[in-house]
Formats: sequence, structure tokens, C-alpha cells
Amino acid sequence: MFRFELKAEDGKARRGRLTTPHGTVETPVFMPVGTQGTVKAMTPGLLEEIGVEMILGNTYHMYLRPGVEVIKGAGGLHKFISWKRPILTDSGGYQVFSLKHGRFGNRKAKVKVTEEGVEFRDHLAGDLHLFTPEMVIGVQEAFGSDIIMPLDECVEYPVDRSYAREAMERTLRWLDRSIKAKRREDQVLFGIVQGAFYEDLRRESALRTVERDLFGYAIGGLSVGEPREVMLEITALVCELLPEDRPRYLMGVGKPEDILEAVALGVDMFDCVVPTRNARTGTLYTSQGVVNIRQEKFKRDFSPLDPECDCYTCRNFTRAYLRHLFVSEEITAYVLNTIHNLRFYMKLMEEVRRSIEKGRFQELRRELTSKLTSRL
Amino acid sequence: MFRFELKAEDGKARRGRLTTPHGTVETPVFMPVGTQGTVKAMTPGLLEEIGVEMILGNTYHMYLRPGVEVIKGAGGLHKFISWKRPILTDSGGYQVFSLKHGRFGNRKAKVKVTEEGVEFRDHLAGDLHLFTPEMVIGVQEAFGSDIIMPLDECVEYPVDRSYAREAMERTLRWLDRSIKAKRREDQVLFGIVQGAFYEDLRRESALRTVERDLFGYAIGGLSVGEPREVMLEITALVCELLPEDRPRYLMGVGKPEDILEAVALGVDMFDCVVPTRNARTGTLYTSQGVVNIRQEKFKRDFSPLDPECDCYTCRNFTRAYLRHLFVSEEITAYVLNTIHNLRFYMKLMEEVRRSIEKGRFQELRRELTSKLTSRL
Repeated sequence: MFRFELKAEDGKARRGRLTTPHGTVETPVFMPVGTQGTVKAMTPGLLEEIGVEMILGNTYHMYLRPGVEVIKGAGGLHKFISWKRPILTDSGGYQVFSLKHGRFGNRKAKVKVTEEGVEFRDHLAGDLHLFTPEMVIGVQEAFGSDIIMPLDECVEYPVDRSYAREAMERTLRWLDRSIKAKRREDQVLFGIVQGAFYEDLRRESALRTVERDLFGYAIGGLSVGEPREVMLEITALVCELLPEDRPRYLMGVGKPEDILEAVALGVDMFDCVVPTRNARTGTLYTSQGVVNIRQEKFKRDFSPLDPECDCYTCRNFTRAYLRHLFVSEEITAYVLNTIHNLRFYMKLMEEVRRSIEKGRFQELRRELTSKLTSRL
Repeated sequence: MFRFELKAEDGKARRGRLTTPHGTVETPVFMPVGTQGTVKAMTPGLLEEIGVEMILGNTYHMYLRPGVEVIKGAGGLHKFISWKRPILTDSGGYQVFSLKHGRFGNRKAKVKVTEEGVEFRDHLAGDLHLFTPEMVIGVQEAFGSDIIMPLDECVEYPVDRSYAREAMERTLRWLDRSIKAKRREDQVLFGIVQGAFYEDLRRESALRTVERDLFGYAIGGLSVGEPREVMLEITALVCELLPEDRPRYLMGVGKPEDILEAVALGVDMFDCVVPTRNARTGTLYTSQGVVNIRQEKFKRDFSPLDPECDCYTCRNFTRAYLRHLFVSEEITAYVLNTIHNLRFYMKLMEEVRRSIEKGRFQELRRELTSKLTSRL
């Protein structure tokens, strides 16, 4: 039911195909994030039109609301949200560890890690919960997502070496419990490499995770506030240690320019809230650079947002209209902006894949990087 | 370029066809409201899919933002908002008179009527504006909407007879100035019947408005807080005095059950924010009655919102999912709910039109009225 084939390589960049029970996915792939059972402001129909092949669902959010029993009752996550293509769900670990910085009314946030798992109060009702590796696998089995992730411990940036080692070791022990707990045959489990920002810990984590012989491997614990170069160095180091024939997933990355760099290092899969969140704040990607559509200078700009874009938004509306909807705080603004940003990402990934096939990825990367980081 | 043909009648109910430069509209028709250049949470593509034939645009809002010059620069309202089908714009009068009840920071709202026009502070920046009949026609000529409305004076409910007469007389004088100001040949102007809640004033307003020989006639000043029976009595009285061969438009109405009653009295055109606004508060229309999707009882209800509905929402999602999106405050909830409520209205109007053709409108009206007002 599951297969990962490499079809072409260009330097370290890889062009592959991932087969799942819900269809195939061309890699490198970008997965839009559907936190609460929908990619924000989108419908499944719009996502298909945009060319989205796979989405990410957040286990933490769906576990809290609507809850496992509702999704189970619906016949799984695919049926509940009416998305027929592949879904990857995360373990919820990242969200739980992010709660450290939150508060619930007068109560301070509580996130307590033990060998058993991680205890926390949720961000909605402030109720106490315990996530264990076994329970997180069980939740994702109830969801029926195609790719599931094991509970891991995410540490902050910076973190001291001794705690980073402890968290890395615990993540490996949790991985073994996850492997043991997993029952369904129509899902695959990835391993997550941790080790914070210490090269030796990352190396050790990578090698010991690979020993578990999993379908694919994720690089976790990045994009948590570290400098971009650190993120890329760790990614490079880990990619070197991962087996050629397994998909590699860089969690939570990223901006288009970061994706290009990570593809160059050999990453196959990405997810990030950037295109959808930026859409809702008016930050839009174009072939000429990044635009904030709120700007006064677009008031009478009757050209399309991006003349090179084939999305519904660019085919039908002007910058002046998009600006008007955005400053008027119309829901339609969020819909049209999200369509565009997601289509931009999908087209970027299409170009990346095509360029790897043709052995011209380095060229594309150089060409795009300067455009992507300029502001219109 | 413009034509209104009556195709069938059933009692006083009329089945017609309105021809405009942007296409034909089957009547009785319901026009969704696109206040700020979009029907809230919709795109033109979705509206077409739903079967919307004509929309209403609010002159007051579009005049303020993005402003006449921007819409003119875009080549008119159709091009600016990318809507190819007919548009009716109101005069802004209703919005301006509604401002009476507003405040701007510490300033009390100011709405001052003179023979010249109506002076007011807008709800956005609190700037002073003067709407005159000539200026309001000019704005709508710049917009290029198919059907335009003259500035009229809307009074509140209740209002004393002497002021009601004064406002009615002024509305007629303003209508004459509007007729004189109108220049474009590819737009038609409706007259608006006023006269508040006094039968003799309404009768006089209707007769004197009809003397102006306009393409169509609107019934204004209703749905301002009066009892439903009063609204229907005035509608009945005015319809009796309007010429058979001109379209009749009941402004700002209404709920499905009100539309059925007004069709029975001979009204051809409707607009109202009810389907779109209710969608955003979770109040959804179904063939079995009105539903508030927020309710706990829908948590595990895996049936479609309305099994008899053919909309995208009902074809793809369950009540449990719609409830989940709504309580999670997802933008997608507003999109899916709006698709459904608008499709419900469009289907209602399709059924109304078909039943008039078949001489079975009274039957349909009786059958639907009890369903429409029950709550699920």
C-alpha cells in the first residue's frame, strides 16, 4: 500500500513519488496545514483545484475538538473533513510543548514531562491531559491518517546540552513504545530526529532513529527560533545520515526560500502555516517578490496580483480589488489570498520537481531565491 | 437592452423575465447583498455555482470605500468585483438614515435632511458628506450597475403623519431630480414608493411615482421594525397600484416565509442580508426547518445538513463537521454555511417560479410556510 520511489536526483535534491492508500504524492511536496480539520479559509474543493496533494492535520487540536470519538464516529479523519487525498498527522508533541508559554486565566501553563509522557493543560478549557506515546498512536489510528508521527520531546532554542541529550534519549524510548503500540497496517510511522542544536546529539539521534527501520524520517525540533543558518546546518547534517530510499520530512518549514535550501540538502516533504497565515495578514507571494496587499500604492493598481500566476484570484481580480477586500476585512479577502498563496507554493513545488528532473535545480534555486526575498 | 416580460401568473403571483445588458434574470428573483464589493464569504465563482443571477451592491459603502474614482478606474463595478451578471445598486439612502442611531467616538451621529439632500458623517472616518439625488445618480452611473435607485428618504417606525407626508413629498421631488440627472442609456432607474405606515400616503406615493413612468418600482421604507402584518398590508396595497407590466421590488425583504407572502401579493424582486448574515451566526435553512448548527445535539450527527439540498456543503459534509468548524470559529464555516443558505434561497426561488408556471403556487406556499418556520 505504501511505497517511496526516487525518480531523479540533481545534486542532493531528490525527485520522488510517495504512494499511500489515498493516492500518490509527487515529492518534494509541500503540505498545507489543516489545524482544526480544515485548511483555514479553504474547502477541499478549492484545495484540489489548487493542486494540493496532501495535507497535514494537527492531532493536538483534533483530539481536543471535536475529539477522537467524533472523528471515529465519522469513519475517520478523511471522511470527517471530506478530504480524499493523503493526510499526515503530527503527534501533538510540538503543540503541547508550545503551551509552556501560555496561560489559562490566572493559572500558569503546565507542561510536565515524565518518562510516561507529557502532562499539560489544554488551551481551550484548561483541562488536564496526559499524552503518552501509546495514546498518541491510538488517536492517530482512530483518525486513520496515512502517515502518523510518534510523540517526541521538542526542546527550545537555546537549550543546555544535558537537557538536550535527555530529551533526545527519551524521544528514542518513546519511539520504541510507539512502534510497539502501532497496530494498523494501512498507516506508516515516521521516526523523528531530535538532538536540539548539538551536532553530535543530532548525529546520534539520526543514526539510532534510522536503526528502527521506519518508512520515513522527520527532522524535528527546528524552526523554533534558531538562526536560519543553524536550521540549515542541522538539516544538512541529518540528511547525510538518513537512508537514500526513505522519504525525509522537515517539520514546520517553511518560507519558499527555506524550502529551496532544504530541497538542495535532500529534503522531500514540508509543512508550514506560512502561506495560509500570511494570506490572512495580507502578505502575498508573487513571482516578483513579496507583497503586502494592504499598501496604499495598490489602491488604483488594476493589474493582477501576479501576472505569472494561474490561480483563480490572479485570473479574476486586480490588486486594487484585493486591497479593497483586505482593508474592508472581508472574509472573501482571506479566501482569495489563501487560494493565491497556496497556489504559489504548489507552483513553486511543481517547478522544483520539474527542475530536478531536468538537472536544472541549482539554476532554478539561484534564480528564485533573489526574487523570493525581494519586497514589491 | 432592457425588457421585462411576464410569462405566467398564478393568483397575484407573477413569473417573469428581466433582460439587462449583463444577461437575463428569472423572476421572482432573490438578490444576495454584496455590501462592500463582495457577497460576504463568497467569490463570484461560488455565486455562479449556487445559481445566483443578480446581486445587490450598496452605493453608500462602495462610495466610501474604495471610492468612486477607484471603481471608475477599474472600468465599473462589474469589472472591479469580477461579476459578469446583472447588478442592482441602492441609493445609499437607507444606510445614511440608519446612521442616526450610530456614534463616532464622542461625536453623536449627524444625519441632516434638507431639500438639497442629506448630510451625514460616515461610519468609517466620521467625515462629513452630502448625498444629493444628482450625486447619487452620478455615483451609480460611474459604477455602471444595471438597475439604479434614486435617493429617497426613509423614515422610522413609528413616525408621525406630518413628517411621513413631508418625507414622501421630498422623495417625489428627489425622484424628479434623479430622472433629470440620469444620463446613461445602459442603466434603468426604478422609482421608490414611500409613505411610511399610512395607507393614504402609500396610495398617493404609489400613484404619483407611477406617473413618472419608470422601468420598475420599488417598495421602500419597510422592514424597519414594523410588525410583519403591517409590512404585508402595505406591500399588498402598493402592489395593487403598480402597473402590471413593470417589475416590483420589495427592498430589504426578507426571510423565506416573507418572500413567499410577498410573491403571493405580486412582488418580483427581493434582497436581504438574512441568508448571508444568518450563515455567519450559524443559523441555517433546511427543507425541514431552521437549524442552529452550534447546538450540542449535532456533535455526532453524521447526516448532511439538509438531505434534500444539492449544494456543495450538503453534498460533502455532515452536521457534525459543520458544527465543529463553527464552534472552532473557522473561516471555512462561514464559507460553507453561506454556500448552503444562498443555495437554499436560490432553490426556494426556483421552486416558486416553477410552481407559478404550473399554477400551483398557493399549494407550495402553504406547504413550505409551516416547514420554514419550524426549528429543528
